[in-house]
Amino acid sequence: MGRVGDVCVLGSGLIGGSVLRAAAAAGRTVWGATASAQDAAAASAEGYPVTTDLAGALRRAADQDALVVLAVPLPAVAEVLRQVAATAPTCRLTDVVSVKAPVAAAVRRLVPEARYVGGHPMAGVATSGWAAGSATLFQDAAWVVTVPDQPAAGAAGGDPAVDLDVFREVVELALAAGAHVVPTTADEHDRAVAHVSHLPHVLAAVLAAVGAEAGPLALALAAGSFQDGTRVAGSHPELVTAMCEGNRSALLAAVDEALGRLGAARGSLASTGSLAKTITAGHLGRQRLDAQRSAEHTPARIDLTAPDALAALRALGARGGRITGLAGTTALAEAG
Amino acid sequence: MGRVGDVCVLGSGLIGGSVLRAAAAAGRTVWGATASAQDAAAASAEGYPVTTDLAGALRRAADQDALVVLAVPLPAVAEVLRQVAATAPTCRLTDVVSVKAPVAAAVRRLVPEARYVGGHPMAGVATSGWAAGSATLFQDAAWVVTVPDQPAAGAAGGDPAVDLDVFREVVELALAAGAHVVPTTADEHDRAVAHVSHLPHVLAAVLAAVGAEAGPLALALAAGSFQDGTRVAGSHPELVTAMCEGNRSALLAAVDEALGRLGAARGSLASTGSLAKTITAGHLGRQRLDAQRSAEHTPARIDLTAPDALAALRALGARGGRITGLAGTTALAEAG
Repeated sequence: MGRVGDVCVLGSGLIGGSVLRAAAAAGRTVWGATASAQDAAAASAEGYPVTTDLAGALRRAADQDALVVLAVPLPAVAEVLRQVAATAPTCRLTDVVSVKAPVAAAVRRLVPEARYVGGHPMAGVATSGWAAGSATLFQDAAWVVTVPDQPAAGAAGGDPAVDLDVFREVVELALAAGAHVVPTTADEHDRAVAHVSHLPHVLAAVLAAVGAEAGPLALALAAGSFQDGTRVAGSHPELVTAMCEGNRSALLAAVDEALGRLGAARGSLASTGSLAKTITAGHLGRQRLDAQRSAEHTPARIDLTAPDALAALRALGARGGRITGLAGTTALAEAG
Repeated sequence: MGRVGDVCVLGSGLIGGSVLRAAAAAGRTVWGATASAQDAAAASAEGYPVTTDLAGALRRAADQDALVVLAVPLPAVAEVLRQVAATAPTCRLTDVVSVKAPVAAAVRRLVPEARYVGGHPMAGVATSGWAAGSATLFQDAAWVVTVPDQPAAGAAGGDPAVDLDVFREVVELALAAGAHVVPTTADEHDRAVAHVSHLPHVLAAVLAAVGAEAGPLALALAAGSFQDGTRVAGSHPELVTAMCEGNRSALLAAVDEALGRLGAARGSLASTGSLAKTITAGHLGRQRLDAQRSAEHTPARIDLTAPDALAALRALGARGGRITGLAGTTALAEAG
């Protein structure tokens, strides 16, 4: 067993590169691997030990029982997991991929003995690459850490006690990076981000295309509403596409809800001329966002060794709560 | 005939109140009327001669041949125009209502002898009322000034020369307020704002409602894309509703385009799992907005007394150009 706190980051893009820097800034021993010789050279030049030798980085992780952070795009996950299985099959493992159920399924299939807890720091995709990363990218951001749906009774990933152990380690990493932790299941995470991250990207793309097609006069008259509504359409299209496609089934449901509401607005405007119901529902929705953000948070504590710890963590996330600290085996939380 | 440059503003909300202040700040003689005794008192206390005596304000406008600025919400337009017809039937008239064809139709019907040129300063609806206004609200904003579809050969509004005269006066007011002028027809304006102002409000409302319905976990994970995409859903819902409903037919067309693109995205995601076409089209659309904004503008001059002046103005607006100054009867412009 190595020192708790060692971190091995696989991938050197915006998120992986920022995890590496943030962990180093928090005093952890960190190293990384990337398929990009350029990124490895750039990171090394800045003093971060990043190599293109993935197997070597994983051997060191296995030797020192480091936390392995999978930080590659979803399409590359399976390939990298096969390398993990070959070199560090029982490692502590987390990831920072924007969708959780597909990654969890790939881990179960390809590295069934890994002690895996999924993660997703909620940071932007407007920029990408090692050079765009920073040690403070996750400051005040939400970092989802997944909790199993059920205590994993003998299933892949071992018993619940092991899960909570790795869970605590991932929480510590997130907190060290300046984030707060939102505990939830992989499926609930994927459903939530489909609605508040992937659907916004799809709607921004639709709006930007419709607006541009309306021509130069329309773009000349575009003010704040169009500017804000299309901002994320400026993000790297390949990354956005991969992110959205990776959450296909949850996103389909969210798109259907949007189609339903937009179709209802269309029908009402055409038949009675009224948009009051649509605009009022949107106003109330936005007020709920603002109210939740400005609400006083009730302090809470969750004993991670208690039999109902997983249920308590799931309930905390479901009502909009977060973990803001750890004291031994107790999670210090703010209820939603 | 009174002094050219006198301005009588009917309505004391965000836009009307700001026009009044901006015209006063530019050294014009201004007065106003409002149905709100509170607003009249507040404006008077700040030194602006605003009365609840609409007929009195209009008599003074008729006596001094002032430019009358109609600055009431669309539902109140007809009632105020009847008062204009009763007291100042041949006045120079413009408006600042967010939709142009319905106002132009009401003017033709109710005040057929008014020398009318429509206007629309592109300012937000996030706040409202006299207190929210300011003399600098229109600084660097686009201010649409309408041009007839055809030279008005003996039709309501008189001959083209008169139109261009009032046109120049409205342009002067907009420039004095710090705005630049986008010349276009009422129908083209309504189509453009349906796409870049009213559709964004509808989509923001749809997104806010769908996101809030997804629950507290989703709102806790909402980051920049949701925050930006729903910002205008925080605007005063009655004002947004009235603005969108007032542009019903153009907005229906824009909503249908959005429904078509969102439905196509849905179909592609469901059948092949791909969103590349949607996201790429959105990215290109947003790039067109950014490119148009950062483009070098070619200086241009339009002789407002030339026979093809109206056509030249329409063409300038259609290609994203703007008027930035007046030198006598020549409009100084930037081509798009």
